[in-house]
Amino acid sequence: MFRFLRPVLFVCGILVLIMSGLMACVALFAWVRQDPEMEVFLISCGITLAFGLMLVLGCRASGFHLISRQLYLLTSLSWVMMSLVGALPLFFSHFQLSAVDAVFEAVSGITTTGSTVLSGIENLSPSLLLWRSLLQWLGGLGVIGMAVSILPFLRIGGMRLFHTESSDWSDKSIPRIQSLARLLVLTYLTLTVACITSYWLVGMTFFDAVNHAMATVSTGGFATDDRSMGRFDAPILWVSILFMILSALPFTLLIGFARRPSLALLNNQQVLGFFGIIVAVTLLLTVDLINLNLFTPYEAVTKAAFNLVSVITTTGFAADDYTQWGTFGIALFFVVTFIGGCSGSTSGGMKVFRFQLSYLFLRTQIRKLVHPNGIFVTQYNGKPVQDDIILSAIAFSFLFFLTLAIVTLLLAMMGLDLLTSLTAAATALTNVGPGLGEIIGPAGNFASLPDAAKWLLSLAMLMGRLELLTLMVLFTPMFWRG
Amino acid sequence: MFRFLRPVLFVCGILVLIMSGLMACVALFAWVRQDPEMEVFLISCGITLAFGLMLVLGCRASGFHLISRQLYLLTSLSWVMMSLVGALPLFFSHFQLSAVDAVFEAVSGITTTGSTVLSGIENLSPSLLLWRSLLQWLGGLGVIGMAVSILPFLRIGGMRLFHTESSDWSDKSIPRIQSLARLLVLTYLTLTVACITSYWLVGMTFFDAVNHAMATVSTGGFATDDRSMGRFDAPILWVSILFMILSALPFTLLIGFARRPSLALLNNQQVLGFFGIIVAVTLLLTVDLINLNLFTPYEAVTKAAFNLVSVITTTGFAADDYTQWGTFGIALFFVVTFIGGCSGSTSGGMKVFRFQLSYLFLRTQIRKLVHPNGIFVTQYNGKPVQDDIILSAIAFSFLFFLTLAIVTLLLAMMGLDLLTSLTAAATALTNVGPGLGEIIGPAGNFASLPDAAKWLLSLAMLMGRLELLTLMVLFTPMFWRG
Repeated sequence: MFRFLRPVLFVCGILVLIMSGLMACVALFAWVRQDPEMEVFLISCGITLAFGLMLVLGCRASGFHLISRQLYLLTSLSWVMMSLVGALPLFFSHFQLSAVDAVFEAVSGITTTGSTVLSGIENLSPSLLLWRSLLQWLGGLGVIGMAVSILPFLRIGGMRLFHTESSDWSDKSIPRIQSLARLLVLTYLTLTVACITSYWLVGMTFFDAVNHAMATVSTGGFATDDRSMGRFDAPILWVSILFMILSALPFTLLIGFARRPSLALLNNQQVLGFFGIIVAVTLLLTVDLINLNLFTPYEAVTKAAFNLVSVITTTGFAADDYTQWGTFGIALFFVVTFIGGCSGSTSGGMKVFRFQLSYLFLRTQIRKLVHPNGIFVTQYNGKPVQDDIILSAIAFSFLFFLTLAIVTLLLAMMGLDLLTSLTAAATALTNVGPGLGEIIGPAGNFASLPDAAKWLLSLAMLMGRLELLTLMVLFTPMFWRG
Repeated sequence: MFRFLRPVLFVCGILVLIMSGLMACVALFAWVRQDPEMEVFLISCGITLAFGLMLVLGCRASGFHLISRQLYLLTSLSWVMMSLVGALPLFFSHFQLSAVDAVFEAVSGITTTGSTVLSGIENLSPSLLLWRSLLQWLGGLGVIGMAVSILPFLRIGGMRLFHTESSDWSDKSIPRIQSLARLLVLTYLTLTVACITSYWLVGMTFFDAVNHAMATVSTGGFATDDRSMGRFDAPILWVSILFMILSALPFTLLIGFARRPSLALLNNQQVLGFFGIIVAVTLLLTVDLINLNLFTPYEAVTKAAFNLVSVITTTGFAADDYTQWGTFGIALFFVVTFIGGCSGSTSGGMKVFRFQLSYLFLRTQIRKLVHPNGIFVTQYNGKPVQDDIILSAIAFSFLFFLTLAIVTLLLAMMGLDLLTSLTAAATALTNVGPGLGEIIGPAGNFASLPDAAKWLLSLAMLMGRLELLTLMVLFTPMFWRG
């Protein structure tokens, strides 16, 4: 068993050490700003460093192969560990968060969900605000890395469709993986810097620009004020829309674009589908808002685009309490919660390609109904798709709704009303952020939920982030029999 | 084109003639009871007779084969025509229903949904009450016939799993189909008579017993009083529970049981799963109700079992306003709305076997994650299941949720709140009956919805009854190109 766990714990240890490094940076920042939370970050850093060193030194080995079972464990365990470690500064802070609140907030951060149990965020010390943003930024980087290199290899939920050389884990591809990792980090950094600069140019303070940029490119959605993006004007919102959309695109395409800028980026069925959805729902909502005489046309299109893009990309910034916008708007926000962005991006949700594959499959099924003996091949991005990839994509949808039903029932058992239970479960599993209803809607927060609900939702956020199966497989006896 | 439509219209004509025959029977009943609606039924009968004769005489032909495209059209068109014809007595009645209300009520009846736009049902004349019950009873018979003989042949939503000799539509099997049809009608009649007798023995009036029995064995849910089953005592409720469960079992098993009574009926994975679900959710809700101190244990188990069985079997009788039972109860009713009974029964919903197939498939997927090179065969009822059957079953679930989302959005666009939109769409597509919320909850009705919503829900009930694809395929250009 230790031989099985050893390399897994070793890699987790490295990640924990990175976390302690980040804490040290924030401690430095706190020292410069004379922020009273400095010692909190130093203590957390110390604990994390010790824990990380213990793992790394205790489990180091000379060269190792990871078999797929170890990759599942590594992926799941690393997210759990980083969440727990990430919760330390929140737990120790002068803000006096309970353990469950600190863990919920950290999980929400690192899974780039963006739900919060904090109110009066604007009263948080800058170092804590920065820590929340860093958690999201780091989580976003982790998601992309996982989506590009691990999930396709693990054949999770149809992700094998994106199996490329970069997700080939044989020895010979190590250099290729290393070079991809470099490109990935570089592109992510570039995107972040571009976003910071843009926010700053259209009027945010530098500190706000940094924090919101980290929450934007990770499609996380943590803000530095209870009003979230509601306190900013249209130019900032449009910059945010642009970067949220960019961050929800397949990251490998962004890397390709960075190396050779061309509009070939758009020659991708998932990207086109994603744009199509955004344009369609924004138009529908804009017309609805104008009809309702709530806003001028420009206000309407800004508000519709910002809030919808925020939910579809699973960022979860709120600029308005859209639950006040009439029945169609509310139902639309509920439905688009499930969609999510493109695969291989920082966004969560069910992902555009799964809907497309399911739709294409349905079309084939309908053709077969009319021509029972016809032979139909499902094509995606111009290439035929194997049946078993479609099967896993569709099975993922089924599993998603099954999990949604179970989490909803459990939340209702804890006394939450149906709307709150259902949308809390949905927003956690899709890593969006806000739910619907008075408690957890865009104008509310998760503070008043019972502790049990917060634990359950933390688990749901992790499950959603890990595309459900990566985590669930650990709970089968088969996995441990090996 | 006429050659294509001819046999379809001919069979529809026969069904319309059967409807006119039933109207004549109700007119006779009205005459005996000196019911003022007698002339309404005579007029409706006349129109229907003329229409039916026109179809039959205009389209008769000497011997014909039906190809699968014609079967789709026949199946869909016959339900639409019977709904429209069935609405006539309601439209002409002294109750002064609008056209949309009459159609909604007839569709709700014949699809065995049981949603109603009527209030003060107890003031309806007996002949109209009888007509509503007859619509459900006839609809139930139609569903079984369709599920046993047509859907498996048409490969809809995994129903090919139940492809047997009886769904072989080649010439040589006509005698077998005729003998099956006889058995089917006989068993359905026996079940109805047994239900009438039981209701009558435990205290209903004979007229109530007849009406409620017809609404029970068809898992329809129309009652003769606004209070639905709420005005009856526990013994009647338990009789109802028994017959609702029986009616949600695969009808071929009931036929087999009638020919040779043995407990082999239980040796069926779908039946066992169905029982398992009922026992599990009833237990959960009973414990919840006792915990909430709302009822004595016996009351709690009776109310939990009756209302849950009513929703799971998609009957939709209400005995209580369960939306007053606390958050867990409400969420549970929402979730179980989707389940439905067994395939080949009168019940609607997604059906137990689809959940089982999806679950088995997921288990196989998870096994494959752990052992990528292993070979796993999905077995159902002790036999291996082909991949494409599983695919269609899972694709059905996806299509179901997609349709649910679209219907929900359209209803919200008409001004209904999210809970009403979502549960109205769900209850229509699953043919259950009541929704949640103040308007369409078990204590409410569909009367106050806008006309557009009633038309849409009528379509949704038909789509649900026809397992979505049977109707949807007609809207593809491919179908008509042939």
